Amino acid sequence: MPSLSLRIHLDPEGRIGPGKVELLEKIAACGSISAAGRSMGMSYRRAWELVEELNTIFAKPLVERQVGGKHGGGATLTTLGAALIWRYRAVEQAAAEATKVHLAALQVEVDRAEELVDIAEPE
Amino acid sequence: MPSLSLRIHLDPEGRIGPGKVELLEKIAACGSISAAGRSMGMSYRRAWELVEELNTIFAKPLVERQVGGKHGGGATLTTLGAALIWRYRAVEQAAAEATKVHLAALQVEVDRAEELVDIAEPE
Repeated sequence: MPSLSLRIHLDPEGRIGPGKVELLEKIAACGSISAAGRSMGMSYRRAWELVEELNTIFAKPLVERQVGGKHGGGATLTTLGAALIWRYRAVEQAAAEATKVHLAALQVEVDRAEELVDIAEPE
Repeated sequence: MPSLSLRIHLDPEGRIGPGKVELLEKIAACGSISAAGRSMGMSYRRAWELVEELNTIFAKPLVERQVGGKHGGGATLTTLGAALIWRYRAVEQAAAEATKVHLAALQVEVDRAEELVDIAEPE
């Protein structure tokens, strides 16, 4: 089935797409920015850049670092960070629901074209 | 106001996003792939690659070249090409309509954060 991927462009600037949202979800799951980045094949530096970009867009932290402690600190989401994930996933779901008829119609065009190719090129 | 940009992922593979759709629109307007690409700051080669990618996804041409003629040929959209533009813009509009409450709420978070910064850093 066809699917959508979404980027939200906020005013004056600030892009929120599937990568940043997945990173926040992974930070919540792993309790660490570096582990979250690693699980997405991302360098620590890149993961930090994305977190910093998000903190700048909202001018408030979405991720908080815990310094020290038994395991040398870690990271958790703030309320705003958790709210952003929820909001993005809600946008995604509403968009998928509202567009499913169009997406199915597009897929029919592609499938029909593939059938024609199958007929034209029998094995 | 916040906005969405959408990528449609078709099965088995094939991505349709704002770049390819804008290129098709420009080809319809300019009557030429190279002029359309140029108007988007894209090389002729890149514009052709995108058109070929679209033709491959649908296994049918979305753009047709006219060879020769007074102005050395040109390019027009096929019915399928025109239908794809319409479909993509319809998806975009349906998604925007279905998500506007969420997007407005996100924008409020950003604006509120900016107000706090203004108060904290008077000029």
